[in-house]
Amino acid sequence: MKRIKLIVSYDGTNYSGWQLQNNAETIEGVLNGALSSLTGESIIVTGASRTDAGVHALGNVCVFDTETRIPPEKIALALNTHLPEDIRVMHSCEVSSDFHPRHADTLKTYEYRIWNDRIANPIQRLYTNFIYYDIDTDAMYRASRCLVGEHDFKSFCSAGSNATTTVRTVTGIDIERDGCLITIRVKGTGFLYNMVRIIAGSLMNVGMGLSPESSIQEMLEAKDRAAAGPTAPACGLTLMGIVYPNGEDRDITG
Amino acid sequence: MKRIKLIVSYDGTNYSGWQLQNNAETIEGVLNGALSSLTGESIIVTGASRTDAGVHALGNVCVFDTETRIPPEKIALALNTHLPEDIRVMHSCEVSSDFHPRHADTLKTYEYRIWNDRIANPIQRLYTNFIYYDIDTDAMYRASRCLVGEHDFKSFCSAGSNATTTVRTVTGIDIERDGCLITIRVKGTGFLYNMVRIIAGSLMNVGMGLSPESSIQEMLEAKDRAAAGPTAPACGLTLMGIVYPNGEDRDITG
Repeated sequence: MKRIKLIVSYDGTNYSGWQLQNNAETIEGVLNGALSSLTGESIIVTGASRTDAGVHALGNVCVFDTETRIPPEKIALALNTHLPEDIRVMHSCEVSSDFHPRHADTLKTYEYRIWNDRIANPIQRLYTNFIYYDIDTDAMYRASRCLVGEHDFKSFCSAGSNATTTVRTVTGIDIERDGCLITIRVKGTGFLYNMVRIIAGSLMNVGMGLSPESSIQEMLEAKDRAAAGPTAPACGLTLMGIVYPNGEDRDITG
Repeated sequence: MKRIKLIVSYDGTNYSGWQLQNNAETIEGVLNGALSSLTGESIIVTGASRTDAGVHALGNVCVFDTETRIPPEKIALALNTHLPEDIRVMHSCEVSSDFHPRHADTLKTYEYRIWNDRIANPIQRLYTNFIYYDIDTDAMYRASRCLVGEHDFKSFCSAGSNATTTVRTVTGIDIERDGCLITIRVKGTGFLYNMVRIIAGSLMNVGMGLSPESSIQEMLEAKDRAAAGPTAPACGLTLMGIVYPNGEDRDITG
């Protein structure tokens, strides 16, 4: 039995998120089905990040155990022939049997993208959140400084989370503008339910001048979801990648 | 009666091109329907570029005549409430009653986008053409030089065109690489049927090393469609914009 790691990219537009559901199409469900038909085994993957409905990923990670004789590094290519075009496996390799993709010390990078113009752009609409009002990205950046570091992010966590602690570490927030495209890049070692989208929604309110720059610090101190801004729409969010410490996800073939 | 000019952007993925058809959804058909319900008149637009099925646009132009009392500059916003999200009117204004959008002296800019990587990117798949093989963009650029200028582009015109002459002027071709994204930008005063996609397909063959750099000059001289490369897939092509000479498309309000 081998443990195989996959790096998975997907357009989340047409899926009810990552996690398996009975009556809805999910990324995990499609992967399980494709892997089972590829290997002839009954495969259930374990994902690193259970992204929400409509959220995209360029580098989610999952693992599964298999007896297949397909060489580990060839599984990506073989699997892609069993997958729809909006899901692609970018990489496959064999990892240690004790590697688990949901590890507390991973570094995850998310990007939240905003299309800021008077009229929405049809070819950006699926991967950005359209905002009509002028956005001051410098104000957003200044307001975001207080979020970097280890904090209790209780205000930035949706109800329905069953996290035992709401303390998390954000290692960096960058905000870039390139024409009409604004990217909020958030890196951290762990994220609460909807945390990046609530951070994005709160910073967008600052950028539009609906909340003062100091409001983010007040939200953090309130430790109350009602104090923070709205959960920004799913389509703007992309999980860019996950880095594991000490090479624990390394290829152990050969 | 006023003549109104619209600048129209669209994601061509789900349409059978610009031009009205009886049994297929087209950009023109959707615009005619939205304008007719907005104004209460029976409106038929005249488009500048009748883009093919699956081709995108960020700045196509069309005109129509109307008695509506909606101020010309407000038509864009009002019309967008009647349109699906994959079609947006970016701008509207009143133009001279003798302005016609298909004018010989316009300058059109097209971009043909390639995603060049070992595995396709799901969130780029609708707006780029995926190519697995290594592409030498410098070779493409050198090969493209002979296309710039006034030439008989007969080899770069699909059958089915009823153009009276196949002489056209390409004013510039740029080729850029930004990571996996390669953009071929073609500007010219007129284009034959499928001309940009055949130029893109021919240059891609040079970039992949399937044809020598000198092949483009030979294609041009052959004046035979069979001598040129394949018509590159529609999804990679976007009509970026159209410039009219002497401000003939200028806003005449007020």
